[in-house]
This record gives sequence, C-alpha cells and structure tokens, in this order.
Amino acid sequence: MTSLKQMDRAELQMFYEAALKEYESCKAKGLKLDMSRGKPSRAQVALSNDMLNIDVVSNAVTDGIDAFNYGGLDGLPICRRFFADTLGVKPEQVFVGGNASLQLMYDTIAKAYTHGLLHSEKPWSKLDKIKWLCPAPGYDRHFKVTQAFGMELITVPMNDDGPDMDMVEEVVKDPAVKGMWCVPKYSNPDGIVYSDEVIDRIAHLKPAAADFLLMWDNAYCIHEFDGEFRPFRDILTLCSEAGNPDMVFEFASTSKITFPGSGVACFACSKANMAYMKKLISAQTISFDKINQLRHALFLKDRATALVHMKKHAEFLKPKFDIVLEYLEREIKPLDIGRWHTPKGGYFVSFFTIPGCAKRTNQLAKEAGVVMTAAGATYPYGIDPEDSNLRIAPSYPPVEELKEAMSVFCTCVKLAAAEKLLAEK
Amino acid sequence: MTSLKQMDRAELQMFYEAALKEYESCKAKGLKLDMSRGKPSRAQVALSNDMLNIDVVSNAVTDGIDAFNYGGLDGLPICRRFFADTLGVKPEQVFVGGNASLQLMYDTIAKAYTHGLLHSEKPWSKLDKIKWLCPAPGYDRHFKVTQAFGMELITVPMNDDGPDMDMVEEVVKDPAVKGMWCVPKYSNPDGIVYSDEVIDRIAHLKPAAADFLLMWDNAYCIHEFDGEFRPFRDILTLCSEAGNPDMVFEFASTSKITFPGSGVACFACSKANMAYMKKLISAQTISFDKINQLRHALFLKDRATALVHMKKHAEFLKPKFDIVLEYLEREIKPLDIGRWHTPKGGYFVSFFTIPGCAKRTNQLAKEAGVVMTAAGATYPYGIDPEDSNLRIAPSYPPVEELKEAMSVFCTCVKLAAAEKLLAEK
Repeated sequence: MTSLKQMDRAELQMFYEAALKEYESCKAKGLKLDMSRGKPSRAQVALSNDMLNIDVVSNAVTDGIDAFNYGGLDGLPICRRFFADTLGVKPEQVFVGGNASLQLMYDTIAKAYTHGLLHSEKPWSKLDKIKWLCPAPGYDRHFKVTQAFGMELITVPMNDDGPDMDMVEEVVKDPAVKGMWCVPKYSNPDGIVYSDEVIDRIAHLKPAAADFLLMWDNAYCIHEFDGEFRPFRDILTLCSEAGNPDMVFEFASTSKITFPGSGVACFACSKANMAYMKKLISAQTISFDKINQLRHALFLKDRATALVHMKKHAEFLKPKFDIVLEYLEREIKPLDIGRWHTPKGGYFVSFFTIPGCAKRTNQLAKEAGVVMTAAGATYPYGIDPEDSNLRIAPSYPPVEELKEAMSVFCTCVKLAAAEKLLAEK
Repeated sequence: MTSLKQMDRAELQMFYEAALKEYESCKAKGLKLDMSRGKPSRAQVALSNDMLNIDVVSNAVTDGIDAFNYGGLDGLPICRRFFADTLGVKPEQVFVGGNASLQLMYDTIAKAYTHGLLHSEKPWSKLDKIKWLCPAPGYDRHFKVTQAFGMELITVPMNDDGPDMDMVEEVVKDPAVKGMWCVPKYSNPDGIVYSDEVIDRIAHLKPAAADFLLMWDNAYCIHEFDGEFRPFRDILTLCSEAGNPDMVFEFASTSKITFPGSGVACFACSKANMAYMKKLISAQTISFDKINQLRHALFLKDRATALVHMKKHAEFLKPKFDIVLEYLEREIKPLDIGRWHTPKGGYFVSFFTIPGCAKRTNQLAKEAGVVMTAAGATYPYGIDPEDSNLRIAPSYPPVEELKEAMSVFCTCVKLAAAEKLLAEK
C-alpha cells in the first residue's frame, strides 16, 4: 500500500470512496463497543475474588490494632508495609486511605487551598493566580482536578523519556507555578516510563514557589503486562537527596490490582509532610476502612506476592494490547497516517492521527457504535492543539469485541485522514 | 446521706477525708479503663460478622450496575434505597459515600470553602469572617471540623427539647452566620431528642445568609437501646415545606450498625443540592467503595431489617447504660452534686458536676486509670464555661470493667465536689 500523503488526487479519491464504503458497512452492523475507560475486564476483576474469602475476623488484630473498630488514622501498619514494599519507600512514609487515589490527590490539593501546604505562606485560596504543569497527553481526571480549583493549566509536551524538562525547569521559575502532575511509569496514555535523567531533573527542580507540589501518581507501579517487573527509583529519596524532601507526594492504589473502585489507596511523603497532613486529616476523619486494608494486606502481602498476581492480569491484558498493535501495524502503518507508542505496562495505547483528525475520527467511531475517550481529553481543558491524540483503552471489551472495535477504529482513521487530505489537495 | 451543700465545715471535712481515702484505694488498684469514646464493644461488632460472608460475587450486578468496577458516583441504587427507607427520604435524595459520615460532613464544608454552596455568592474562603452555631454540649469532632476552617464558633445552650431556638432565631439574622450543627436524635452527648416544635422552628429559620448550611447529623437515627424505634420527622420535607429546600444536608452511617470505621455513610439533600454536589464531587472521585455498599445493602436490606439487628446491639448496650445510671442514682444523687440525662438511645450519658468541677474530676479519674473524654471537649474550643460537663461513654468496656470505672468515677465526682465546697467555705 502507498502512503496516503503520496497519493495523487485520483488515488486519494478512490481510497476515500473505499474507506467510506467500508465505514458504511461497519455502521450497518449496529455495534455497541466501548474502548473509553481503563477498566479491567470482568474476568480480570474475578482474579481477586478469593480476597473476599480471607478470614479477616480471626486476623482482626494486627500490630495491636483492631481493624474492626475506630482509630488508626494513617492506616493499618500491615497495609502500610505492603505499600512501602511495593513502592520502595519506608512504612512510616505511607498513609493508607480509602478506595481511591484520585480522592487522596484531590484532597491534598483541596488542603493546599483551604489550609496551605507545609511550606505555604498562606492558603492557596488567598492567592490571585495559580498555575499548574500538565505534561500532555496526560490523564484527563488529573487535569480536571486542577481545573476544578480554577488553576491555569500549562501544557508541557511529553517526549519519549518523559516531560520536556527544559521547559519545566524554565517555567517553575514563576512563583505562581505551584505544582505538576506526573505519571512516571507507563504514563497515561502514552505508556512512557520516565528516564532516570528526567526523574533526576525533576527531583532537582528549583521552583520559585516554596510550596511547589509534585504530584507523583505511580498508578502503574507494578502493572507490567509485557515482560518482567521494571524497577523504578524512589522519588521520595531522590527529592530528599536533592534538597527537596517536602516537594513530593507519591500516590498509588490497588484499583487495578484487586477491585476497581473498591481497592485501597495510599500516599507517601516526607516525615514532615506526614505530620502536617495527619494533623489536617485528623479533623476530617477518624480512620479509613481498615477491614478493607486488612483484607488487601493479607491477600497481596508484599511486592513479590503482588507481582505474581499481576502476572495473571497480564495474561488477560497482553493479548488485547497485541490485537490493538496488530491492527495498527497492518491497517495504519503502511498508509503513514498515524503513530503510536508500544507500551509494556499500564492500560492505554496513545494514538496520534495526522494533525486535525482526532475529533473527526472519534466522531466517526462514535457514530459507528464505538465509544472512545473524547478527543482532546488527554490535554488540559480538553483541547488538543494538534487535534491528533486519541486514547485507546483495550482492557475492558472481550477479545472478539475488541477486534471488531479496532477494525472500526482503523476504518475511521483512514476515512478521516482521506477526508482531510482530500480537502487539502 | 445529706446533700453535700448542706453540710457544715466539719461534716464536709469528714466527707472529704473519706472520699480521699476511697480515691487512694481506687488508685492503688492500678486500673486501666477507657470510657472515652463511643465505640461499640467487640461483642457488638461481632454481631455483623455474617455480613462478611454474604455472596457479593453472585450479586455483583444490581440495577444494571456492576459493583465490581468503576462508576456510579452517587452510590449503588440498592444502597441508596436502604438509606432512604431508614431515614424516611427518597432514594434520589441519597448520595452514598465511603466509610465515614464525618468525612462527608468535612467535605461538604470544604466545598463551601473552595467552591461555595449552591446559593453562595462566592466561595467561603473569600469571606472575611464566618460564624457557626454549635449547640453545646455537643460532639467534639463536629466542633473541630468548623474550627479547622477558622470559623468563629458560637455556643448555643441545649435545652431538654433541643437547642435554644430563641437564641438561634436571633443569631441567624447575622449574615456571617453560615450554618449550624445538629444531632437531632439522641444528641451527642446529652441523648436528647429534639422536640417537634424545635424541629419545626429549625426548618422555618430565616437566616440572613442565603447559603446557610444546616448540618443534620442523624447519627443515631435507629439507635434505640431502650424501648422501641422512635419515629422521627423528615427534615428534608420540613425544610422544603418551609421554603428552605436547599438549606439542609442530612448525614448518617452504619458505623454503629455494622463496623465502626468500615461501614457505609451517606448524605441526603434536595434535588438541586444533589445536582450541584455531584458536579463538584465528580472532579474528586470516580466512585466510592460499591462492594462495601452492596454488602451492607444485602445484609441490612431496609429499616425494618436493620431495626431487628439494632435490637441485638441494644442487648449489649442497655445493661451498660443501666450500670452507669445505677451508680449515679446510688452514689451521686443523694449528695446532690451532679445531674444527668437518661437517654433511651445513642452512645452517651451526659453528666454535669457542680460548676467548676469537671476538669478536676476528669484529672482525678485519669490519675486513677480511668480515661474519659477530656473535660470541655463537648464545648466549642474545648472550653466549658461552667467547667461542669463530662461525657460518659459506657459502650466499649466489658460490664465488670465498666462497674469498676463507674465506681472510680463516682469517687472522683465526690472528691472533686468536696474539694471545691471546702475551698468555698
């Protein structure tokens, strides 16, 4: 097949008509497929059903704390140890919360607004203007948290090794820049693992704001689906060694290890941040759900045990990512109308259409019954300046449905590209 | 026995010496007893262990929603129906959250600060001064939430039928007064049930602040330990009929029905408030722990089923409250050095020493190994103007320990009163 851009008008017109015909026949099938969110499939979720049979009653008291009664604001020690081992931090650096890391992230920023952080002069609500760094493509829900607080979101381009650090280092000289979102391992949606150099530069940042907040969302810390566990560096230690001990909060959860939305989430931070946050959180709650913490700690035990469990998830995920990549290699690559990353972990494939085609591709897919994350969602304010990025989430649909969805998707990519190139001829 | 106040100095001196001797012998026992927090006992908590064996896997999908995956921000419909039936409101008025109603309360006020409420002109963080009504004696954690946000707390005296409404109606004419804490049924710590008249007057309040927030913590809605369930009026309907539909948020949880700290909490509010809050909360989280919601809904089913369960709790609680009241009747009443309420539900007995003796009584008890809630904790800023109120929480200790603790407590009340009266002679 010829690259679409090299076709003459007549060839392109023929290609367009073929693509349109293919699309109409997709549409006629009346499909209803969903590749919109990074949800584990039902079969994956069932992998953790045994956790519900764990005898929490006989094990109610661990480290002298009764999981079945009030108390223990920072979480059960046995669960703090599990997260510490998994993240490579110290147990006393871990605060185990409720069912969602997103909520812990939101609350951290909310507390910056209502009370200020450890090194804040005053609560952020008293400031006129707050700016926030958003490496993009990125996670739409991250961006929405900071947008919900009225911050000005600054897009930082993602390179193959992480955020554009030249830009970050420059921008943090502005004292109104108060923080940055990071998904350092298998970034959402690109699946990029930040390089050691990028991580070092992040740890060594010299922000003008004394209360600059590095939001380190290690959402996919042990979430390889292709190959072995890839070790990662402890950002708390790196920041501490760089003279920025209180700059970072790290987040993680078991939502994609056990049950989505019914797992256990945590944050990890410096000793000084922990004391400060515990004081603030002590006005908010007595304790989080320690029975669920206990259940998780007894089931997952430590990183090694959790990694064995993650291999079972990988058996479901790998074939699905293979399908996505096979379709893209076969249908899109020869036409040179898209590029993508090939992740080894996480939940997404980040696909880039030729500029100006993401929205149209998305709309075509939707009309043919394939729901995807909205085009633009991976950028601040939902605006992709290139109108190019689309997030493919292959985990939830069964294999046969995924194949159908990818077939429709590739047809839509072709049709949208042909429309665009024809219009430009 | 003679009333202590009627004794002459010699009699009082003799009484004092006897009390001191009794106290020293208590102290010599080296006790370690806890009547500080309203925690259900281990035996009570075990009443709900069967809930952990409920087959949530086979029942994962209810009303078309999979409890085992993301989604369902406002909670599982089956769980919303349980709370609606229990509180006497409509399911669509109920938002089911995580494990703690305190956190939902804190978050409601936090959102008033960061974003403002439905009828706020601007976020409360932009206001110079906010005042808040605190009926007292009241719940220390309520007061601490509003204190944590820097509000000026205004003490409202509690009468036998609820807060002093003459004062409340007057004070809400100040537009800086933004809200009020209420525990309408078996108030913490007095165990008072607000009268119909008081509730009507609350619903008909005409606050100057358009965004006045009535925090209706129905913590003990079905928590009778003595006698049958006492129906209560639906504050949402009452406020709506009084022209204040958006003034109130009602809160409840299963912390003292199933597992303390691992239950399910909810708020209930008007349709307009629900839409507004859901929009704000959608930036904060995808969903709360729906598996725990499912487990609770299948176990508790509806109010009638939950009330059968509450009867089992009552079997543990009633004898403990009887012990407290027996000791007070026998040891304190004849001396006329204290008064108290006789609740039929809730978790506390509110005890009033003669003025100026609460702190001293508390300190004496502590030194004799009996931990109680700090004196003053039931008042804003921890300051009881009369230094008189002490909260007795009899639920946690086993019966034999409770008897010992009450024996020590009564001795301390006597000694502190004798000291005080002697000093005044």
